[in-house]
Amino acid sequence: MTSRDGFQWTKEGGLSQGVPTLSVINPPTNIKSATDQGDYDVIVVGGGYSGLTATRDLCLAGFKVLLVEARDRIGGRSWSSNIDGYPYEMGGTWVHWHQPHVWREISRYDLRKELEPSFDFSRGVNHFQLRTNQGSTTMSHDEEDTILRTALEKFVNVDGDMGRTIIPFPHDEFYNPEAKKYDKMSALDRVRDIALTLSANERASLEGFVLLCSCGTLETTSFFEFLHWWALCGYSQRGCMDCLISYKFRGGQSIFALRFFKEAASTGNLSYIFNSPVKSIDDQSGKVILTTRDDFQFTGSRLVSTIPLNVLETISFNPPLESLRMGAARTGHVNQCVKIHAEISDKDMRSWAGMSYPLNKITYAIGDGTTPAGNTHIVGFGGFHNHIHPEEDVKETKKAVENLAPGNMDVQRLVFHNWSKDEFARGAWFFAPPGLVSNSLESLRRRHGNVHFANADWALGWRGFIDGAIEEGTRAAKDVKDGLKPPPAPRAHL
Amino acid sequence: MTSRDGFQWTKEGGLSQGVPTLSVINPPTNIKSATDQGDYDVIVVGGGYSGLTATRDLCLAGFKVLLVEARDRIGGRSWSSNIDGYPYEMGGTWVHWHQPHVWREISRYDLRKELEPSFDFSRGVNHFQLRTNQGSTTMSHDEEDTILRTALEKFVNVDGDMGRTIIPFPHDEFYNPEAKKYDKMSALDRVRDIALTLSANERASLEGFVLLCSCGTLETTSFFEFLHWWALCGYSQRGCMDCLISYKFRGGQSIFALRFFKEAASTGNLSYIFNSPVKSIDDQSGKVILTTRDDFQFTGSRLVSTIPLNVLETISFNPPLESLRMGAARTGHVNQCVKIHAEISDKDMRSWAGMSYPLNKITYAIGDGTTPAGNTHIVGFGGFHNHIHPEEDVKETKKAVENLAPGNMDVQRLVFHNWSKDEFARGAWFFAPPGLVSNSLESLRRRHGNVHFANADWALGWRGFIDGAIEEGTRAAKDVKDGLKPPPAPRAHL
Repeated sequence: MTSRDGFQWTKEGGLSQGVPTLSVINPPTNIKSATDQGDYDVIVVGGGYSGLTATRDLCLAGFKVLLVEARDRIGGRSWSSNIDGYPYEMGGTWVHWHQPHVWREISRYDLRKELEPSFDFSRGVNHFQLRTNQGSTTMSHDEEDTILRTALEKFVNVDGDMGRTIIPFPHDEFYNPEAKKYDKMSALDRVRDIALTLSANERASLEGFVLLCSCGTLETTSFFEFLHWWALCGYSQRGCMDCLISYKFRGGQSIFALRFFKEAASTGNLSYIFNSPVKSIDDQSGKVILTTRDDFQFTGSRLVSTIPLNVLETISFNPPLESLRMGAARTGHVNQCVKIHAEISDKDMRSWAGMSYPLNKITYAIGDGTTPAGNTHIVGFGGFHNHIHPEEDVKETKKAVENLAPGNMDVQRLVFHNWSKDEFARGAWFFAPPGLVSNSLESLRRRHGNVHFANADWALGWRGFIDGAIEEGTRAAKDVKDGLKPPPAPRAHL
Repeated sequence: MTSRDGFQWTKEGGLSQGVPTLSVINPPTNIKSATDQGDYDVIVVGGGYSGLTATRDLCLAGFKVLLVEARDRIGGRSWSSNIDGYPYEMGGTWVHWHQPHVWREISRYDLRKELEPSFDFSRGVNHFQLRTNQGSTTMSHDEEDTILRTALEKFVNVDGDMGRTIIPFPHDEFYNPEAKKYDKMSALDRVRDIALTLSANERASLEGFVLLCSCGTLETTSFFEFLHWWALCGYSQRGCMDCLISYKFRGGQSIFALRFFKEAASTGNLSYIFNSPVKSIDDQSGKVILTTRDDFQFTGSRLVSTIPLNVLETISFNPPLESLRMGAARTGHVNQCVKIHAEISDKDMRSWAGMSYPLNKITYAIGDGTTPAGNTHIVGFGGFHNHIHPEEDVKETKKAVENLAPGNMDVQRLVFHNWSKDEFARGAWFFAPPGLVSNSLESLRRRHGNVHFANADWALGWRGFIDGAIEEGTRAAKDVKDGLKPPPAPRAHL
């Protein structure tokens, strides 16, 4: 199947919109009309990992669930395009066993053996290329790690214990209230504090890495939020590499998302409808009425909204959302990541990695696999500090890839999803600007009448990660179940 | 309520069996007779975390479940005695957010804020006391960490990368088949390999720590299994401290176990009976018949046995268990931990820790809390290398506590559970002897007709931990559900 989402450019075919994927559900609905099933126990809006988890848990618990999704596919901001059987991850990619919610699911679906390392630092052009204002340096991956580790340790070491005393319990972030102080600071503030202690390469490497995490600007990146990632990763650079960018699904992320959907469907309790963007959500007289842009209406006892933070203001809620929540939604998160896959006609680039900062449109890239044609698959990242809409200027995008390793980047194919222009995402994974988490996290998590809100954007642990999405879907399902118990009158399944 | 399990000794009252706990379920059954509910969909044997998780998941999924438990309480090898409102952990204690299954549940039950650190290295007698054949040394906790880190890094560094290349995916342990080689080695073999590089204090510290993990002898401790713990902890000494011994439930482990039980009960699908040791399990003509020692019989479509490895040979299975599984059960795991809580009439011992090895009956102990009386609560560990049955010789047990810090240990109270003499455990948490995991893990995990086996003893990840128990209960529930679907005919709950 082909989704409307995503873009592909090839030397032969040029640019086209829509890419092949396992994540399109066919048929796009299993209901005959909006009132086919009468009232639902629960309506879940959004088929990303939050929505899939909530849907699955509630279906398993015997509730009659309707899943409403704007797109033609599941996965939200995490999905893979499988081209000639080879997966390109369009959004969320890497997972790790220190991410509790994602790992519980990988274990439960017995997918442990479906993971593989992204890196393979074993052969060919096996080095790290750092290009800054000051010129270009080539170094070993060990030297790359040392520079980044040294710089990161200076960056996070606000307490003489690498930030541990500031965020001792990363899943209970303000356990030490002093942590709030660091949410008033931007990454730029902190870089300035330590600037004199950093070598030029350390500074470029640090800024490049921080921007790889937030994909905003240094000014709009909360220093606390970065510390929170650091704490979750075990307070070490090696931990960051392991947890953030090392292990992915051999067959692509979408094989994982499909497990949730199929298990929910297997209960007989799942109704679903794709291609149905939501216009409004009305909570009236103990029922929630959802109206789509096509003016279909569905009614449920409860509704779980997994609409992302940056999209929330486009939906009409009645009664209106509280001002703190709406304020946070208008501020939004800052991640405008530009993630580009490039197929390079050079098999020897598999062990290469590079950073070009601050002048290049792609800041960081690594060899991520070998394609069926035997070429190297490179994945690169840019952000709002030097933004580009790739489909609007393919030539410039190609140049940004070429600039990372001049002479070694013969681009055969580009694959990407423009998350910034995606009306159902308006950005990539959540990353907080200063103040957002300390001011608004509690409000964002709060139930609003019969409407529950679940999204990785306001998870407590791995906020912005697939793990956080599953955390939130789990929470919403539990809250709804506890609120609606005793269970609804059972229905025959056979 | 008071359980039959556990012992308490006080200066005033002497020794008594049975301690107060939140984990006793009253009434001890909710069925009227063995045939009260007719046939069950699933019988779950054992109310530890494996059994509780399987029971809860299956009840939530709409199956009619009978939980059969030999003891008068839930929790299995993890439970707390709450004395005067203060919890003493009788078995499994510490949890960490890098343990995916346990953390998913802590998050789902919103218990994140119920954790507290065990250590408090801030005041009073704030040092580490190391007592060996060579004499006694007092040092700072930082120096303690340095000695152990240095020694551990020599111990695990078989590949020049701290064991990472041997176990790169700790939840897929033989991803690198070379790892099997290290399961042929004992901890003693490895100590001998590096003995010349270790100082006397490093060696004592290393051996004491390894024996704190296995509670066997160095000869009976698989070096691979230790490497596996190391990998799970993130390949660092600090990671080991964090994951293994740092964070516990403020109110005691049993508050956590109760959540599972209560949620299962809230579905209306749970029948349960305590005080009912199992005699035999017969899988005949598509049904499983369980017979208790009291000759009650219960029938289910499936049975989930969470009977621990060391107890398996005491139950009669028909058809008999395969020879590989029975061989492993007869070999058993090696952990014969002696865990002793001591209330010490000295509030200044809160920040103390000590090791006395190899001559003392308690090898390692730390300050773990302050009791309602304002005294220090010390928790200590011994093992099979220098074994004692505390209730059989309280005087010797007290002396072992006193020996750790002569002059500073005025013992007011002892609290403990003798896991070695417990017929339903026959040992503490699982730790593998050489060969057991590579030879038998697959067999131990296999379904046997309509009988599923779930226990932390053969978990893939945190084997022997609460996390592994939940991993296994989750797996069993999923397997049973998938096997029995479509779901059974629903029943009314209202």
